[in-house]
Amino acid sequence: MAHLSDTEQKEVLNRLSRTEGQVRGIARMVEEDKYCIDILTQLSAASTALDQIGLKILDGHVRGCVRDAMVTGEEEGAEKVSELMEAVERFTRTK
Amino acid sequence: MAHLSDTEQKEVLNRLSRTEGQVRGIARMVEEDKYCIDILTQLSAASTALDQIGLKILDGHVRGCVRDAMVTGEEEGAEKVSELMEAVERFTRTK
Amino acid sequence: MAHLSDTEQKEVLNRLSRTEGQVRGIARMVEEDKYCIDILTQLSAASTALDQIGLKILDGHVRGCVRDAMVTGEEEGAEKVSELMEAVERFTRTK
Amino acid sequence: MAHLSDTEQKEVLNRLSRTEGQVRGIARMVEEDKYCIDILTQLSAASTALDQIGLKILDGHVRGCVRDAMVTGEEEGAEKVSELMEAVERFTRTK
Repeated sequence: MAHLSDTEQKEVLNRLSRTEGQVRGIARMVEEDKYCIDILTQLSAASTALDQIGLKILDGHVRGCVRDAMVTGEEEGAEKVSELMEAVERFTRTK
Repeated sequence: MAHLSDTEQKEVLNRLSRTEGQVRGIARMVEEDKYCIDILTQLSAASTALDQIGLKILDGHVRGCVRDAMVTGEEEGAEKVSELMEAVERFTRTK
Repeated sequence: MAHLSDTEQKEVLNRLSRTEGQVRGIARMVEEDKYCIDILTQLSAASTALDQIGLKILDGHVRGCVRDAMVTGEEEGAEKVSELMEAVERFTRTK
Repeated sequence: MAHLSDTEQKEVLNRLSRTEGQVRGIARMVEEDKYCIDILTQLSAASTALDQIGLKILDGHVRGCVRDAMVTGEEEGAEKVSELMEAVERFTRTK
């Protein structure tokens, strides 16, 4: 994470805090028996928000850790790329 | 939501509360500069958890609202199915 | 499939034939060593096209088989919904 | 694509050819009015297959083009990463 700038880290934290509030709001909708389709819309939005935060962090990771490892040496780079691809697979749920 | 039983509603609320805690935990990881790949793993897990809650609610919606509308009449059923398919599209992000 | 109209079935077949051609085109790009990012763009497009065809068929299935089963009886409807939800899970890759 | 070995390129071509056959098989199922759920299962499988091929190519791209650009210089690397992240966004359909 050291590879996100202060501004980027702050933005990620703001987005996470908004998503946390969104999840709390969804729980309230469930308790108040709100219409299912409206709840589903909020759930899709929150899930997409988390994936977008993930892409932001992935971006910082590639520019930082992965790049550093690649410049250091072939073996170090190869290890980071394997780890990276597993993270991408989890994100695309292809694994 | 009237179509989830009390037990199912409780389970959905428990899962939402766990996911909310998970998102709060991810924010802590970002603040503490934890390793990006570990943060990404948690983000994928939270996003998948929200989608699974969505499927639970979708299931209740089809068995309840959609079924009731279909039994009531062709037009009522058709309307609910259009609404349902839009929700599924948002979930699969094909829209 | 009996629940897609002739026009809808024709449209689905047209889209499948276009996607088949797209996949063949991607193979050609790989053979000709085209730029990876361009190949990836085509792969994403073909994968999204298949998911959109799936939603079309899902729509016909809900309006047809699922509706018929629901009107027939509670048990018949319940079975079809379980089967339907499994298909949606596979589509959202949440399973 | 220059960054996939001959064996890897052959494997990608084999997988693409299998997926092309799968799409042709799905068209046949549609023509023969096969059961929707069985068609949906095949569509999900073909779509997942394309995403897995995409990940294979992404992997080669990161180890090859992206790595080369990163070793060459900061600016070259940064450009490749932007392009890469857009491809990942398209894959996760977060864009």
